[in-house]
Amino acid sequence: MPSHDESPTSQHHPLNAETFRRAGHALIDWIADYRETIASRPVAQLPHPGAIRAKIPTHAPEHGEPITRILADLDTIVMPGIVHWQHPGWFAYFPANSSYESILGELASAGLGVQGMLWSTSPACTEIETHVLDWLVHAMALPERFLSSGAGGGVLQDTASSAALVALVAARERASAFATDARGVGAFGRSMVAYTSDQAHSSIEKAARLAGIGKDFVRLIPVDATGAMRVELLEAEVARDRALGHLPAFVSATVGTTGVNAMDPVEDIARICRAHNLWLHVDAAMSGTAAFCEEFRFVTAGASHADSWCFNPHKWMPVNFDCDVLWVADRAELVRALSVLPEYLRNAATESGKVIDYRDWQIPLGRRFRALKLWFVLRSFGLEGLRALVRGHVAMARELEARVRSCDALELVVDAPLNLVCMAHRAGDEATQRLINVVNGDGRFFVSHCRFHGKLVLRVSIGALATTPEHVRALGDLLISNANACVSSSCASPAESTR
Amino acid sequence: MPSHDESPTSQHHPLNAETFRRAGHALIDWIADYRETIASRPVAQLPHPGAIRAKIPTHAPEHGEPITRILADLDTIVMPGIVHWQHPGWFAYFPANSSYESILGELASAGLGVQGMLWSTSPACTEIETHVLDWLVHAMALPERFLSSGAGGGVLQDTASSAALVALVAARERASAFATDARGVGAFGRSMVAYTSDQAHSSIEKAARLAGIGKDFVRLIPVDATGAMRVELLEAEVARDRALGHLPAFVSATVGTTGVNAMDPVEDIARICRAHNLWLHVDAAMSGTAAFCEEFRFVTAGASHADSWCFNPHKWMPVNFDCDVLWVADRAELVRALSVLPEYLRNAATESGKVIDYRDWQIPLGRRFRALKLWFVLRSFGLEGLRALVRGHVAMARELEARVRSCDALELVVDAPLNLVCMAHRAGDEATQRLINVVNGDGRFFVSHCRFHGKLVLRVSIGALATTPEHVRALGDLLISNANACVSSSCASPAESTR
Repeated sequence: MPSHDESPTSQHHPLNAETFRRAGHALIDWIADYRETIASRPVAQLPHPGAIRAKIPTHAPEHGEPITRILADLDTIVMPGIVHWQHPGWFAYFPANSSYESILGELASAGLGVQGMLWSTSPACTEIETHVLDWLVHAMALPERFLSSGAGGGVLQDTASSAALVALVAARERASAFATDARGVGAFGRSMVAYTSDQAHSSIEKAARLAGIGKDFVRLIPVDATGAMRVELLEAEVARDRALGHLPAFVSATVGTTGVNAMDPVEDIARICRAHNLWLHVDAAMSGTAAFCEEFRFVTAGASHADSWCFNPHKWMPVNFDCDVLWVADRAELVRALSVLPEYLRNAATESGKVIDYRDWQIPLGRRFRALKLWFVLRSFGLEGLRALVRGHVAMARELEARVRSCDALELVVDAPLNLVCMAHRAGDEATQRLINVVNGDGRFFVSHCRFHGKLVLRVSIGALATTPEHVRALGDLLISNANACVSSSCASPAESTR
Repeated sequence: MPSHDESPTSQHHPLNAETFRRAGHALIDWIADYRETIASRPVAQLPHPGAIRAKIPTHAPEHGEPITRILADLDTIVMPGIVHWQHPGWFAYFPANSSYESILGELASAGLGVQGMLWSTSPACTEIETHVLDWLVHAMALPERFLSSGAGGGVLQDTASSAALVALVAARERASAFATDARGVGAFGRSMVAYTSDQAHSSIEKAARLAGIGKDFVRLIPVDATGAMRVELLEAEVARDRALGHLPAFVSATVGTTGVNAMDPVEDIARICRAHNLWLHVDAAMSGTAAFCEEFRFVTAGASHADSWCFNPHKWMPVNFDCDVLWVADRAELVRALSVLPEYLRNAATESGKVIDYRDWQIPLGRRFRALKLWFVLRSFGLEGLRALVRGHVAMARELEARVRSCDALELVVDAPLNLVCMAHRAGDEATQRLINVVNGDGRFFVSHCRFHGKLVLRVSIGALATTPEHVRALGDLLISNANACVSSSCASPAESTR
């Protein structure tokens, strides 16, 4: 970024409206330039630890610096330490789409600078959130009991981790009839138990540790060959815990596991939850977005029996981080478990009972106007635009899957239900690791790994906004040629990637 | 915002670089226009509940809408439901400064769209955060043990609520030697106890409920005439709990209570914490920013004995929400209490032990590049700029305080240590409530209230970036003339404000 109006001797003041306009326009252009040229950068080239810090002075400046110099450091200091999650060759972890629309939504939210802790502290912040989350219930064909017009409702959380924690706390309180809220888990007398699969996200176990349930009372139920929770083992564990005098309280079913995108059988799990009065939480963080498309609505199976259901628009749906949607069937349980009412927050609107105060639906008190970016994305893309995005990525995954299937050197670890293709080299983990190293050393692509039933897996997560079929084909070419080379040659180890 | 290029018949596509540039420039200008004209708006005029939602269609659009129409709705739909926290007449709750610099930082963060959960997923995100939080240790003369070069370090949280929760969880685990992490609070056998003053923020009690400690095991220690925790009562409660067989574990001292900005005697509290091996957390959410100025460093008293210390740059320091800084003296305790290491997040950098992975310092896994806005603000303002801001607000508070003191109809409820002036009408709560209604009905100002030792208090929280001495003088004129009128007349109740 050019630092055209920099004058080293003049005194610099904080920005005013005029200098903000200039700097803001320049930054908007910088972002557009970055996105337009992102494909020319290596996806993930890591500096040495400490190299970024080494470029920054040891102490904060005594006198203000010109904004042009500060923004120029985005290129000189920041960019060498950036892994390009918005790159078309981003196939690692999960998509983390920061669309242009959502960038504008985030910008508008920062520009307004309001606090949405209470309805009365900026009604638009609350009402647009409630409204847009109702929109999503319809658009994703989720159960009507998640609508705000009934007993339930939706709320934005930062992440699925926080969503799981607040759901678990509400479950804990329902199970103890709010005795633990008052007297703590210590005075309750029985250990509560939470259940999830051994392929579930680490945040479920973390939530149980945070909430005082304890790691030893999280049962990680084994999965079948597809990665789905084995319901008969869940049932057996619940029975065993009851026999031991524990109190089974909470199940988190995963719709799209982090490792291989496996789908837990939510309907069957729900049956057990009903029989034993367990809170059913569904974590559909990445795959929930597929519910915009009718043909992929297996991701919402069983949702009508869920006490809470969450997904992350900040993953596959193109809303920038952070933005997780949590719906609950009965908001009263959640609110009671999380409510606070100090005198300094009392106000007529709250006391009228006619408004939602989202501070009581989350861990923090304060909250920013996150709904704006969701609203902007839904309106600018339209539902058909979002469906086209999902369908496009799934089609790319199917094509890659077919190529992997027809490559003798590779095996498909599981069928890809949606946009994540999981493969391994038939020659074993070492060959798979070499393949990962080749792909990540190439510069055009970045993939990540998991272990599934003991096997090292190369994951190709397809979902970046910029990714086209050609990018996936080029990745497929690289994968297949190197996989075959490894079979036909001595598989000389390529240079190790830095990760 | 003009919707000049809208064409109702054409098909609309998601934004591309070109349309993003145009819309982005327009939105930057809209924000600058909003801020330049904000003083002409009533600070807080609330719509009827549901009025904002009523302007939005029941269902999400099937087809994409032009961005110009979407941005135009900022004026037509959003603005009527906005309470203007950035208004120069904002004297309610606490300052929530969203400076131009921090808006640019938030914009850059959204534009980069990276995930900072691990060092390796975007090293700049981690290293700039670590570095800037070290900057703050020096700039605020905080203890060196909070520097990342020693055993401690800083981390950004969303809010002081989350900071309190993770500190409490780390305290819980230290107190139980990590037995509760494994077996839960239920199997520990003793109830743990947390202490804070009865003027502390509600988030402390909420954290104890979330963490399974229970509301009944939070001791809300009474305060003295200034609002500070009575240390002799803390000591007596700790002794009593020990005698009952409970395990005192955690104290949260408040530096600047929400109600009247009272300062707990941290040094004295620290003595008790050392004697009884209690974790000492300090919540300096709003007032911590004063530590930039040497003459206000009473706010960091006792910090060298704190296990954790937090403040919110998103309050008085002009960094937009959300941005809380939490420092810990021993990061190993925090990290052990919060760490997860699933296979899919394993990487060479983490295993080298040379990097910080901030996912293990917080509740969520994911995190955005929040440090950018803090870095931008520190550099553009410079330390002298931040000190001038703090000193300016304190001087305005002192002037208002002197006027209140010399007004026979008003009493100063406590001396103002910094930027919050707390007053009551000498005629009693009803007169104070009428005064609040007058101020909030005027349109130029917005104040909030609290109760202190049973008395209704009108709080004037001075700290918005746009506030000048003239705004505070005009508020003082209104307060004093109405307070006197209420004494000399029948105090006819003015029209009730909507809140």
